[in-house]
Amino acid sequence: MTRVLLPLLALSATTLMPLAHAQGIQRYAIPGSDFPISAAVEVPPGHALVLLSGKTPPVANPSAPKGGVAVYGDMETQTIGVLKRIEEQLRGMHLGLGDVVQMRAYLVGDPDHGGAMDFDGFMRGYTKFFGAKAPTKELPARTAVKIAGLAVPGMLVEIEVMAVRP
Amino acid sequence: MTRVLLPLLALSATTLMPLAHAQGIQRYAIPGSDFPISAAVEVPPGHALVLLSGKTPPVANPSAPKGGVAVYGDMETQTIGVLKRIEEQLRGMHLGLGDVVQMRAYLVGDPDHGGAMDFDGFMRGYTKFFGAKAPTKELPARTAVKIAGLAVPGMLVEIEVMAVRP
Amino acid sequence: MTRVLLPLLALSATTLMPLAHAQGIQRYAIPGSDFPISAAVEVPPGHALVLLSGKTPPVANPSAPKGGVAVYGDMETQTIGVLKRIEEQLRGMHLGLGDVVQMRAYLVGDPDHGGAMDFDGFMRGYTKFFGAKAPTKELPARTAVKIAGLAVPGMLVEIEVMAVRP
Repeated sequence: MTRVLLPLLALSATTLMPLAHAQGIQRYAIPGSDFPISAAVEVPPGHALVLLSGKTPPVANPSAPKGGVAVYGDMETQTIGVLKRIEEQLRGMHLGLGDVVQMRAYLVGDPDHGGAMDFDGFMRGYTKFFGAKAPTKELPARTAVKIAGLAVPGMLVEIEVMAVRP
Repeated sequence: MTRVLLPLLALSATTLMPLAHAQGIQRYAIPGSDFPISAAVEVPPGHALVLLSGKTPPVANPSAPKGGVAVYGDMETQTIGVLKRIEEQLRGMHLGLGDVVQMRAYLVGDPDHGGAMDFDGFMRGYTKFFGAKAPTKELPARTAVKIAGLAVPGMLVEIEVMAVRP
Repeated sequence: MTRVLLPLLALSATTLMPLAHAQGIQRYAIPGSDFPISAAVEVPPGHALVLLSGKTPPVANPSAPKGGVAVYGDMETQTIGVLKRIEEQLRGMHLGLGDVVQMRAYLVGDPDHGGAMDFDGFMRGYTKFFGAKAPTKELPARTAVKIAGLAVPGMLVEIEVMAVRP
């Protein structure tokens, strides 16, 4: 039996190695850039996909005039609020921001920036969570666009993520 | 051999149980809310993903002036038309709206609502299909944003869904 | 041994056939239309998902006035530039445009078209890559919307794709 079993075990060890490798999420950096997103993320078979509804910011200043940006805060504040909500949702599913593989950020023009989207403010919020100096080093693929508006006036950002169960 | 095999079979039975559990789509409700979307949907491994192109509404009034909203109807009418088209597409693939796990709704500002998006009209259409009192109780994760426009003037809504084969 | 092995091989050939079938990406055409996108694409289990960040166009005319469309070229030029970048990113991962299963095109209103999005220009660029007469016959599910803007003024298009490893 030993003569038969040993080659089988050797084969098993060999074939398991690529399988073990295939379990891992692969994140491809943007060449020559330290911009804190992945150029691409590859999710091998065998992972559960976790699709979150788009999240909007919580009320930051309940006493601010209704319908204004001040209710939810500036873009940095709103981005932090949204990402905290996403983190909380993921935690409730025993996941974390490091399991996020894709993010879509929908930004609204900011009246305090002449109607332009405050991309810098968004990045200041984002980099508190994601990046080399932030808690989460595993960076998602990301798309960020300026949209025409959200369902609630005063909201400047909605973020939708897909995570995978490791 | 029996002493060796029995523990192996026992292990196998134990490990198969979580696998069987993992076959089911898990839909996480929004805590303390009856808003008819899922906060998140988890798709375990082993399901085919079905990606639909964004669907736009059919012509509702062929005699209406070209380029106007009246050609396609108001937001509620257009939303119903789009969701019927999605349902039809899914049926042709032996799937249904209950297999939808994610939805993205792109809404256009409505000239009959001062240029704002008619979110209430969209919800009236949506809830004819999805929700506790609607045919489809399995609710998708959803993102809804106001965009600047669609390829065809007069169209107020485009909806893109991902479904999974059960 | 031969009597035992032959039926096993026959069984193996039978069971491999549906497996081999299940490996294939299924692309559903739009009935009665030659519009070069798929109505839906079905990705069976067992494929790695490759999620790319949204790609924007490269600089086409470095000497053009900053912030203007001329820096990146017209919509057709920008679309070609974006799709070449996506192709290059995929090639670096040993994939190609034929592995793309879903595309989201975010188009910006073009000042040279009265603020409307130049959908025709986008299609001219797109059909250089995808379609019956183009290099890539495998067509993605696609959503195209007009957004309010991108992070860099002058950019008219951002494209996000999901590919699968065959």
